[in-house]
Amino acid sequence: MPEKRYLVTPGPTPVPPEVLAATAAPMIHHRSPDFRGTLERVTERLQQVFRTENEIVHLTSAGTGAMESVFQNLVSPGDPVLVVSHGFFGERFAAQAEVYGCKLTHLRYGWGESPNPDEVGAQLEKMGGAKIVFLTHSDTSTGVVSDVQAVAERISGSDGLVVVDAISSLAAVPLETDAWGLDVVITSSHKALMSPPGLAFVSVSELAFEASRSATSPRYYFDWERARAAQEKGENPFSPAISLFLGVDVALGMILEEGLESAYERHVRLGRAARAGVKAMGLELFSPDEDRSAVVTAIKMPEGIDGGSIVLSMRERSGVTIIGGQGELRGKIVRFGHIGYIDVFDVTTALTALELAMVEAGADVERSAAVTAAHEAYAEPVSV
Amino acid sequence: MPEKRYLVTPGPTPVPPEVLAATAAPMIHHRSPDFRGTLERVTERLQQVFRTENEIVHLTSAGTGAMESVFQNLVSPGDPVLVVSHGFFGERFAAQAEVYGCKLTHLRYGWGESPNPDEVGAQLEKMGGAKIVFLTHSDTSTGVVSDVQAVAERISGSDGLVVVDAISSLAAVPLETDAWGLDVVITSSHKALMSPPGLAFVSVSELAFEASRSATSPRYYFDWERARAAQEKGENPFSPAISLFLGVDVALGMILEEGLESAYERHVRLGRAARAGVKAMGLELFSPDEDRSAVVTAIKMPEGIDGGSIVLSMRERSGVTIIGGQGELRGKIVRFGHIGYIDVFDVTTALTALELAMVEAGADVERSAAVTAAHEAYAEPVSV
Repeated sequence: MPEKRYLVTPGPTPVPPEVLAATAAPMIHHRSPDFRGTLERVTERLQQVFRTENEIVHLTSAGTGAMESVFQNLVSPGDPVLVVSHGFFGERFAAQAEVYGCKLTHLRYGWGESPNPDEVGAQLEKMGGAKIVFLTHSDTSTGVVSDVQAVAERISGSDGLVVVDAISSLAAVPLETDAWGLDVVITSSHKALMSPPGLAFVSVSELAFEASRSATSPRYYFDWERARAAQEKGENPFSPAISLFLGVDVALGMILEEGLESAYERHVRLGRAARAGVKAMGLELFSPDEDRSAVVTAIKMPEGIDGGSIVLSMRERSGVTIIGGQGELRGKIVRFGHIGYIDVFDVTTALTALELAMVEAGADVERSAAVTAAHEAYAEPVSV
Repeated sequence: MPEKRYLVTPGPTPVPPEVLAATAAPMIHHRSPDFRGTLERVTERLQQVFRTENEIVHLTSAGTGAMESVFQNLVSPGDPVLVVSHGFFGERFAAQAEVYGCKLTHLRYGWGESPNPDEVGAQLEKMGGAKIVFLTHSDTSTGVVSDVQAVAERISGSDGLVVVDAISSLAAVPLETDAWGLDVVITSSHKALMSPPGLAFVSVSELAFEASRSATSPRYYFDWERARAAQEKGENPFSPAISLFLGVDVALGMILEEGLESAYERHVRLGRAARAGVKAMGLELFSPDEDRSAVVTAIKMPEGIDGGSIVLSMRERSGVTIIGGQGELRGKIVRFGHIGYIDVFDVTTALTALELAMVEAGADVERSAAVTAAHEAYAEPVSV
């Protein structure tokens, strides 16, 4: 039998068979009544998941394309922006701000730290306000989920637009686009929306659409107004990833049937299970040991153990795919993703494969404790 | 039984069941040995289809995103460019040139006309050369396939880079990237590559990579150098549409197994079949009545008949999807696509559905002649 595979990464995430089957339906035309219903239903369901009445712009691209669309649609060279980063993906916003010629202030937190709302507020005041403030909700490079609600509240008096990367957090961790006053929220299909990669979605407030009218950065494919105009007619401006839309539609139906509150609660319990297992094995957590860290669990490698080798060994020996550290954390940590179509048994499978790989690498880990600890933690009730 | 659907449009095109099945495989990680083989095989197979040894950059986007990537990677504001257009999609290059601040010369042919190589050469000389010359191989808005080989030959003495939109023509109509000296050739997954939409591929010459180094347009997601660097490691820089890659891999295998020459020949015969059927019905062709028009057959609507209504009626009555005219041709023509996973029986199904719709609309068409005429034309041998 060919080796069975287990995907326990924060994106792509495992895709439910119902969703995979939907993506394999015979091809239909994107400017036809056959597709219009899907497109409109996806928008309406996404509004429920984003918790917003704002327009949801569809883009056929990775999440990074959607991040770039913010610069294309909202900034002109020289515009002052504040990027608050706490990991690899927040720093990508800063890199894009440089590319688009923004006057960038970068409040850079260390990888593993969480932004402090008062410091963000003070920074914004010190720089005399910004046209846009960029926040990252979940940075999968570290496992930190930041307190976007508190940060947004602290800066709510300022004029700047608030942009949030919720690529890996939306539908896994509570996020309230309208109630928290978030002008732009970005997500993509292959994280907690448990669909294949290739689609990104951007919630855009009226204020943001207004700002786009005077922004001079060149844009065509990622133009939000063009997307809105087409979507109002039940279309996309360019050929969308039709089959992926069919999948996202089914996935959103499943998420809303489970209920967002239940999904949030399940993710808290999955995070607890992962952390309890890691600790029972005697390993140290890199990501915060808190309920909010419900997207990724990052684990420090003991002295002398290379994270990259552990990832390879888990895949080769057990067919389990997790990921190593990015950037400055390469080799130093390994990461489990536990968002989307993930159950506690996927987490315990990954824990067991990690245990086996660590033992083979000569690490001093506690045997036979992780699985039970994870299941016990998962069984504890939570209130979100 | 729910109404059966027939898709006879030039993009999306019908997707073979083997390709659909491949896209529905369980999700795998894009930075893993599981995916690397697919990615490298897709590149190598695409090089055979593009007939090039150049790098093939992968983009998760529609073809329009890949078109925009040319401006982002190759131009700086003020650069002189020549856009030669003969329809809706060529004019899109001109629109993008304006967005990116190029000094645009637009040699605009009427919709339905074919560019004249000598006129293109003379225009280029008159303007004192251009940094880039943009050509459209097949413009699906009209059905015209232009003689890119002759145009490229005529301008081969100039310094400018030659960029070709081969989105709907590649693998359907002969195109020789290296032999014709084409610096950049663009295609996408959902035309003659008979896969779902969502991926675009750009063949980029070393000269074009060199030019990209001094181009100042902002770019991040569509950055060709970033893509090349990742692809050299068997990866994409950002999460690619993994499931669509699995499909394209299978589709390319099928195309190369049929053989490019056979595919070209089949497309010539499909185009002949469509045109013979249309003429037998007593309708007038809008697209040229020549073998080169092997992508789309465009049909003039008789006085008093609205093309849009015919398209709707064909879908409602027969489950057959074709498309109407775009832009200035809206209502005036209807279009069959016959590229990719299309057989002569799909063409005759569309012809019959058209005949039924025309009769219902009160048009004076010849009954019962189209199908036989189409099959007879299809049976004639061709040499490409």
